[in-house]
Amino acid sequence: MSIHRRIVLASRPTGFPTVDNFRLEEAPVPTPGEGEVLVRNHFLSLDPYMRGRMSTGKSYAEPQPLDQVMIGGTAGEVVASRHKHYAVGDRVTAMGGWQEYSLIGGSSLAMLQKVDTRQIPLSAYLGPVGMPGITAWYGLSQIIAPKPRETVIVSAAAGAVGSVVGQLAKARGCRVIGIAGGAEKCAYVVEELGFDACIDYKGAADVRALDARLAEVAPNGIDGCFENVGGMGLDAVLGRMNPFGRIAVCGMIAGYNGEPIPITNATAILRMRLKVQGFIVFEQPDTVGWAVAELSAMLASGRLRYRETIAEGLDSAPAAFLGLLQGRNVGKQLVRLV
Amino acid sequence: MSIHRRIVLASRPTGFPTVDNFRLEEAPVPTPGEGEVLVRNHFLSLDPYMRGRMSTGKSYAEPQPLDQVMIGGTAGEVVASRHKHYAVGDRVTAMGGWQEYSLIGGSSLAMLQKVDTRQIPLSAYLGPVGMPGITAWYGLSQIIAPKPRETVIVSAAAGAVGSVVGQLAKARGCRVIGIAGGAEKCAYVVEELGFDACIDYKGAADVRALDARLAEVAPNGIDGCFENVGGMGLDAVLGRMNPFGRIAVCGMIAGYNGEPIPITNATAILRMRLKVQGFIVFEQPDTVGWAVAELSAMLASGRLRYRETIAEGLDSAPAAFLGLLQGRNVGKQLVRLV
Repeated sequence: MSIHRRIVLASRPTGFPTVDNFRLEEAPVPTPGEGEVLVRNHFLSLDPYMRGRMSTGKSYAEPQPLDQVMIGGTAGEVVASRHKHYAVGDRVTAMGGWQEYSLIGGSSLAMLQKVDTRQIPLSAYLGPVGMPGITAWYGLSQIIAPKPRETVIVSAAAGAVGSVVGQLAKARGCRVIGIAGGAEKCAYVVEELGFDACIDYKGAADVRALDARLAEVAPNGIDGCFENVGGMGLDAVLGRMNPFGRIAVCGMIAGYNGEPIPITNATAILRMRLKVQGFIVFEQPDTVGWAVAELSAMLASGRLRYRETIAEGLDSAPAAFLGLLQGRNVGKQLVRLV
Repeated sequence: MSIHRRIVLASRPTGFPTVDNFRLEEAPVPTPGEGEVLVRNHFLSLDPYMRGRMSTGKSYAEPQPLDQVMIGGTAGEVVASRHKHYAVGDRVTAMGGWQEYSLIGGSSLAMLQKVDTRQIPLSAYLGPVGMPGITAWYGLSQIIAPKPRETVIVSAAAGAVGSVVGQLAKARGCRVIGIAGGAEKCAYVVEELGFDACIDYKGAADVRALDARLAEVAPNGIDGCFENVGGMGLDAVLGRMNPFGRIAVCGMIAGYNGEPIPITNATAILRMRLKVQGFIVFEQPDTVGWAVAELSAMLASGRLRYRETIAEGLDSAPAAFLGLLQGRNVGKQLVRLV
C-alpha cells in the first residue's frame, strides 16, 4: 500500500493565520470503489476564500472542519477509475484539496471535470479559464456590464481575478484602471496586461492621497468597480463614482482576518444612485458556459495574458497561502506537486 | 397690484438647520405672460431631500440658491392662465416653491400637472399618489421586487414614503416590519397601516439591542430593506439579511447634517451576496404611470391608508420643516396655505 501526503487544518487562526494552523500528514493512497475515480493532483489552487473557511462564523459556506484535508481546487490526471465517464490519463479539475492524491466519488463527482490541454495548459484551468477567470467574467459582464468608453477600476489588479477583469474590460472598449500593491505589480498590470493606468496603493498614505491619484488617472470619474479588497481603496473609489455606477463586490480581503472594514463613504450610494452587489461565482452556473467560451477563445488566441506564481511541493502550500494573503504573488498562486 | 408672501433661503446651515436659515418676504403677485400660468398654492410639500439642497457639496442636484424662493412641490388651483392646456379652476401640482402664488412657465411647465380631485383629495397628490408614493412604489417593486412570504423591512415606517412601502409590500403577500421612532408611531404603523410588527428604535440603545429585536420580529431573516435613514439601523438590518437580499437606498437622513454614517457591517454585502442600490425617483419617468395607476386604485378603494401632519400658514413652514427632520411628523408633512 503506497503512502501520500496531505495537509489538514490543525487549528483556527486568531487574526492573521500562521503555518502552525496547518499540519502535514501521511496517509495511504485510497483505492477507488465502484463509481469512484483516483486523481493524482499536479497543481493545487490557492485562493483568498480559503481564509474565510478557516474561521467559524456567518459566511456563505460551512467552515473547513478541523483535522480534515484543507479544501481547494486541483488539476491533475486520472490514475485509476471505476467510473465509466473517466479513464486513466484523463486530465481533470476537481475540488481535490491539499493532498497528492484525491479520491473523487459521490457528491464530489459534481465538481470533477475533464479538460482539454491541447491548446490550453492544465494549470490555466485553475486560473484564467477556471474559477478566477469565471469570477472575473461574471462580475464584469453581468454586474458591471460596462459600455465602451466607460471607466472601470479593479482592485488586486495583478491577481488571478483582477488581471482577467481588466483584460475583459479592455476588450469591451473601456478605460481600465488597476489598483495594486507595489511598483512591480503596477508595471506588470500596465505593460503586460494593457491596463491604461495602475495606482500603487502602498504609495498612498490615506484616502485623500488615493483620491488625488484617482482624479489624475480617471478624469471622467468611474463607472464600474470590481472590488476584491474593500477598506480604504473602496472608500476612495466611492468618492469618484459617476451617477448610476456599478460596484461588483467579489472580495473584501482587507477584512478576512476579522478586522472591521466599514464603508465610510456610504452616502455616495445614494448621491450617485449606485448599485453595489456582492456575488459568489459558484452560485451562477447558468452563465459558466458563456464565460468559459469567451475566456478560452481569448486565451487560445493570445489575447488573454496571465502569470502564475508557483510554489514547489505540497509542504510549501501553507507558506504560499500566507504569502497570497499578504499579496506576495503576481497572478495565480499555485502549488506544483508533480 | 396685490402682494403675496414667500420664503427664501437666507443662509446655509452648519449642522442642524435653524429657522434663521430662512427669511419671509413679501412680493407682488406676478401676472402670467403668454404661455404662462398663475397658480394659487393650497399646500406645500415638505420633504427630507430639501435638507440636501440647503447645502453645497456633491449631490445629485444643484444646491438651492441663496435669496431665492425655497424649492418644493405644491398643490393648488389655476387662478390665471395664458396657456391653452390650463384653465382657471384647474387643480394642479407643480414645483411651485415655498410661496403663496407661483408663476409657472418655460421649463417649470414640465412639472405642472392637472389632477382629478373627484375621488382623491388634492393633498394626496403630494403624498401617497404623489412623489412619496411613487418613490415607495419604485424602490419596492423595481429594486426590492419581493416575492410573497418574503420579509421586507422599512425604516421611517410612519413617514410619507415608508407608510406606502409597507402597505404595497403587504399587498404583495410579504411579512412587513417597520422601524420608527416612538411608541405612538409604532402603534400607528401596526394598527392602522397593517404592518406585522414595528421596532421603536428609540427603545434600542445600540446595534446589538436592535439586532435582538430584529431576531424576534423577523425570525426568518430579511429579504428586502427599504432604507430611508442609514446609520445604526441599516447596520443592524445588514446583519439579518438573507442571501440575495435587496436593499433600496432611498434616503440616509441620519447623515443629512454632514455626520458621517459609515456602513460598519459592509462585509455582509459579500457574505450574503446582497444588492444595495441607491435611486432617485425623478430619474425613473418610465414607470411613473404604473406607479400612479396602482396607488390611485388602492387609495380610491380604501386599501391605501395615510395620514398628514399639517402646519397652518406659510410662516409655519420653516419650523415644520425642522420638525420633519427631527421626525416630529406622522405621515406626510404639509403646509396649508388656503
